[in-house]
Amino acid sequence: MSAGKLIGVGLGPGDPELLTMKAVEAIRAAPVIAFFAKQGKRGNAREIADRWIPEGRTEIPLHYPMTTETRFDDPVYVEALSAFYEQAAATLASHLREGRDVALLAEGDPLFYGSFMHLYERLRGEFTSTIIPGITGMTGCWSVAGEPMTWGDDVMTVLPGTMPEAQFGHWLRHSNAVVIMKIGRNFPKVRRAIEQAGLLERAIYVERGTMPGEKIARLADKTDPDAPYFSLILIPGNGRRP
Amino acid sequence: MSAGKLIGVGLGPGDPELLTMKAVEAIRAAPVIAFFAKQGKRGNAREIADRWIPEGRTEIPLHYPMTTETRFDDPVYVEALSAFYEQAAATLASHLREGRDVALLAEGDPLFYGSFMHLYERLRGEFTSTIIPGITGMTGCWSVAGEPMTWGDDVMTVLPGTMPEAQFGHWLRHSNAVVIMKIGRNFPKVRRAIEQAGLLERAIYVERGTMPGEKIARLADKTDPDAPYFSLILIPGNGRRP
Repeated sequence: MSAGKLIGVGLGPGDPELLTMKAVEAIRAAPVIAFFAKQGKRGNAREIADRWIPEGRTEIPLHYPMTTETRFDDPVYVEALSAFYEQAAATLASHLREGRDVALLAEGDPLFYGSFMHLYERLRGEFTSTIIPGITGMTGCWSVAGEPMTWGDDVMTVLPGTMPEAQFGHWLRHSNAVVIMKIGRNFPKVRRAIEQAGLLERAIYVERGTMPGEKIARLADKTDPDAPYFSLILIPGNGRRP
Repeated sequence: MSAGKLIGVGLGPGDPELLTMKAVEAIRAAPVIAFFAKQGKRGNAREIADRWIPEGRTEIPLHYPMTTETRFDDPVYVEALSAFYEQAAATLASHLREGRDVALLAEGDPLFYGSFMHLYERLRGEFTSTIIPGITGMTGCWSVAGEPMTWGDDVMTVLPGTMPEAQFGHWLRHSNAVVIMKIGRNFPKVRRAIEQAGLLERAIYVERGTMPGEKIARLADKTDPDAPYFSLILIPGNGRRP
C-alpha cells in the first residue's frame, strides 16, 4: 500500500467563493480533512470551507493549546506550541501511512505566514505533498478597499505589527507600498509610526476583509485604538502610471 | 437604463484551475469580456481563461502598442502607452454606458502591478466597479517551489528587477524574505547582487510558475543568463518556528 499525500489547501481571505477551482476539487476528493481551530471553536478555516466539504469525510480539528496574542517569546508558550505541532503532525502521519490523502486547510495561502507550514516542515520529508495556493489576506483586503496597491517599479514591503516602533520609520520611508499585518494590540504604535512618517492620509485600515463584519476606513478616520489581530493596514504605492 | 459594471477579474498565476469560484462565475455571467494581448497574439490572459468563457460572448482584445522590455522611461513609449490606455478605456466605457457589464481579465491579481489598474483608474470615477482578487504570480511561484515563504515576524519585500544594482544590497540585507520580479534582461545583475549579499544558496529561480514549461531551480545552479521577463526569484524567510 502506498502512503497518502499531504495537500495544503489555501482557502483565501475568508469569502468562501474565493477558494480556487483546484482547492474546491481537492477538498471534494480528499477522504481526510484537517484544520486548525481555537479551543472550543469550530475554527475560521472550517467555516470558510464549509460549503465545499461533502458529507462523510473524516474531519480532524487541530486545537491550538492557547489563543492568539500570547507573547511569542514566552518559553512556556513556545514549548506548548511545539508539542502541539508534533502531536498534530503525528495524527496526520497516521492517516497518511494508511494510504489516505489528507487535505490540510490553510487560511489565506499555505506558505505565507500561518500554521500550515509547521506541519508541512514536519511531514514533507516522509510524505509526498502538494501545495494549492490561496489568495492571501492582504490581497483580499486591498481588493475590497478597491485601491491599486503596486505600480510599475514600486517596492512593496510586508511588515509585522509586532515590530518595535523605532524600526517602522525606516521601512515606511524607503518603501513605495506597505502592508502591515498582525495589528491587534499593536494598532496605536503602528498608527503613530505612520503618522510620524507623514503617510496617514494615504493609509487604509481593513478589518475582516471579504468576511461578514468587514470594515474599511481611512486610517486618518480611525481614531479608536481597537483592532482585532487579523486586521491590517495598507499604504498603496504611487508609482509610474502612463 | 442603468450603466454596466466594470469587473476586474483576477486570473491567478497561469493554471486555469487557479481561478477562484467567484472569478469563474463572473466570467460566465458577463456579456462582455475584455483582455490585454500583445500585437498579433491571442494573449496570455485569454488563454488562461479559455475553458471558462462561454460561447457567444462579446470579446474585446486590447492590443498593446509595443511588446514588453521597451525602456519605460522612453517618452515615445510612455506617450503611446498612455494613448492606448485612453482608447481602451473609451472602448470599455461605450459598452458600460449601454448597460453591459464588462469583465476585464487580469493576470495574477488586478491591483498588484499589471495593466488592469490603468483602465480602472480611468473608469472608476464614472462607473461602478468590483474587484475579484486573484492569486499573484509570486504566490503561484512559491507554491510550485514548495518553499514556505514567510514565518512569524518575517519582513518580506517585493523588488523589481529593474532596480539599480547598488540598491539591491540594502533590501537584501534588511529583509527576511524577498521576491524579485521582472527578471528578464536584469537576471545577471540580480544574481550578482544576491551572490554579493551571501544569499545565493537560499535563492530559488522560478520561470512560468504553474504554467506549461514551468522551470524551478536553485539560483546557485542557474548559471546561464537567459530568463524571460515574467520569471522571478524567491528568497524564502527563515523566521521563528516552534
